[in-house]
Amino acid sequence: MNDLKLFKQKFDVHLERYLEKQIENISKFTKDSSILKNIHYLRKVSLSGGKRIRPYLAYLMYQAFSGKENEEILEFLVFLEIFHTFCLIHDDIMDKSDLRHGVPTAHAYISNSLKQEGRIGDIGHTGSSQAILLGDLLFSWSQEIINSNKNFSREIIDLVNVYFYKMVDEVVVGQMIDVDIATRKKVSKELIDNKTMLKTAGYSFTTPLLIGSALSGNTDKNIETFCGKFGLAMGIAFQTQDDLLDITSSNSKLGKPTSSDKSQNQHTYFTYFPSLEYGKRIIMDNFRQAKELVEKLKIKNLYRQKFLNFVEAIEKRTF
Amino acid sequence: MNDLKLFKQKFDVHLERYLEKQIENISKFTKDSSILKNIHYLRKVSLSGGKRIRPYLAYLMYQAFSGKENEEILEFLVFLEIFHTFCLIHDDIMDKSDLRHGVPTAHAYISNSLKQEGRIGDIGHTGSSQAILLGDLLFSWSQEIINSNKNFSREIIDLVNVYFYKMVDEVVVGQMIDVDIATRKKVSKELIDNKTMLKTAGYSFTTPLLIGSALSGNTDKNIETFCGKFGLAMGIAFQTQDDLLDITSSNSKLGKPTSSDKSQNQHTYFTYFPSLEYGKRIIMDNFRQAKELVEKLKIKNLYRQKFLNFVEAIEKRTF
Repeated sequence: MNDLKLFKQKFDVHLERYLEKQIENISKFTKDSSILKNIHYLRKVSLSGGKRIRPYLAYLMYQAFSGKENEEILEFLVFLEIFHTFCLIHDDIMDKSDLRHGVPTAHAYISNSLKQEGRIGDIGHTGSSQAILLGDLLFSWSQEIINSNKNFSREIIDLVNVYFYKMVDEVVVGQMIDVDIATRKKVSKELIDNKTMLKTAGYSFTTPLLIGSALSGNTDKNIETFCGKFGLAMGIAFQTQDDLLDITSSNSKLGKPTSSDKSQNQHTYFTYFPSLEYGKRIIMDNFRQAKELVEKLKIKNLYRQKFLNFVEAIEKRTF
Repeated sequence: MNDLKLFKQKFDVHLERYLEKQIENISKFTKDSSILKNIHYLRKVSLSGGKRIRPYLAYLMYQAFSGKENEEILEFLVFLEIFHTFCLIHDDIMDKSDLRHGVPTAHAYISNSLKQEGRIGDIGHTGSSQAILLGDLLFSWSQEIINSNKNFSREIIDLVNVYFYKMVDEVVVGQMIDVDIATRKKVSKELIDNKTMLKTAGYSFTTPLLIGSALSGNTDKNIETFCGKFGLAMGIAFQTQDDLLDITSSNSKLGKPTSSDKSQNQHTYFTYFPSLEYGKRIIMDNFRQAKELVEKLKIKNLYRQKFLNFVEAIEKRTF
């Protein structure tokens, strides 16, 4: 089993524990079984699938710069995955996706439940509304985890917040572009790049690394350059690879219908590329660049190797 | 001009300044004019109408318990109104409301813009998606204001967070009930009470008071009893009054169509009351109870009078 899979096993214990505690807490606000049933579904959405890339990168960076291997930090890093689940729930509403990681998305699950219960009115809309609220709850929880923590110094949490709030602005604006693009007949490559920078590079790679660095107590500002460059290379490679898989992969492997991007008038990198081969070259070049950046990073060989393994796991999608 | 109107004048200067700064900041993430136009609309949504009840109550409590009248705190209290605007934007999507305070709601504005620009696809859905994202942005900003503040001690901010995060859970669960209720043929009065406690009493009255108390440095835990009881009485009175106005008031005054609740299969207190008179009695009794609680509160007469004026302004809706 590779590092990322091992990490997921350990991390998910904390994630599950946290969700159970929160769902238990929420039960003091209402006794209504329909509402509680929807909230319980958060556990399923969050724990079904998902690679835990973001907390893994933060943890790796934390280890590399603090030399510590303590697992208490995993409890804190749960905020990244709670935030990610919030993003997925809201994204799935916007994309009208009914399935993710092989299970019904939040809005689809709730709409189905209401239908089965013989509810009246616009059931589809109600499912989306409840899913918006489930997402809002997770978004709140993610920030509560950061700001109710007592294990890190005020200075460290302040820096985490600086990175976190910048990332939220980025990922929201990135998603705004994504949503807007689907209504346009023509889109510039510049705008697709803009979206990838914000939604993928910054959100999935650069910021988790910065947060891991901040938590380690690292105060060397130069690390921001590495995180930015590594994130950009990984973001472009990953997004292009994702676009490619959307064209070529089979339904069952992704857990969602293939060519869903195209059917929704989604503009991808392959709109601009002369061939699939050209796209594959972009992917390869950027993964190589990411590895070169890691080679130059001044950390212990053990962690350097873990970084390289990570890039390869993403490259081969063996996670 | 009454206290609340004077407060709004002073407060809105800070609110506007904050929004302009944030919108300026966001402009570094994209140059796309469609996206920026949507984000700019946040200024209009937030500054058109609204009574500023929540920051006013927090300010009043802060003054009463600290004796200070400094206006720097208004800059901080902007977070309550930013959070409130987030709630309104998401609520309006769920209620399919196209108008609030006489101006188009976020989703309606964006859908109209896209239509005028000749965009393709499901324009209505895209408008809602963008409005979800505008709300997410504000939700994030409200918490960033709290947690990036350097003027208050860590202990004070920690207490603000305790109250704030409890309130978010409350208001989200309250809204979940509100949304769910519209799909039911029959609803218990217990559930309507549950909703009012969470969405109105806690959110609009109790929590702003608690936050004002925390910011004043007041550490007397007994204050929580006053805030809870006052909030409950005001919440019931206000919600019942709102339901009554929805039945009786004219379109132009509320800035939204009348009987919009009924047309959406909304269950209100008047579903259970034998008569309008009975409802009016509930309203009167609860406003009187709120005033009695204020009479017993150990604060300077100046602030006691301001509290009483506030209850009366709400009672007579002269704000």
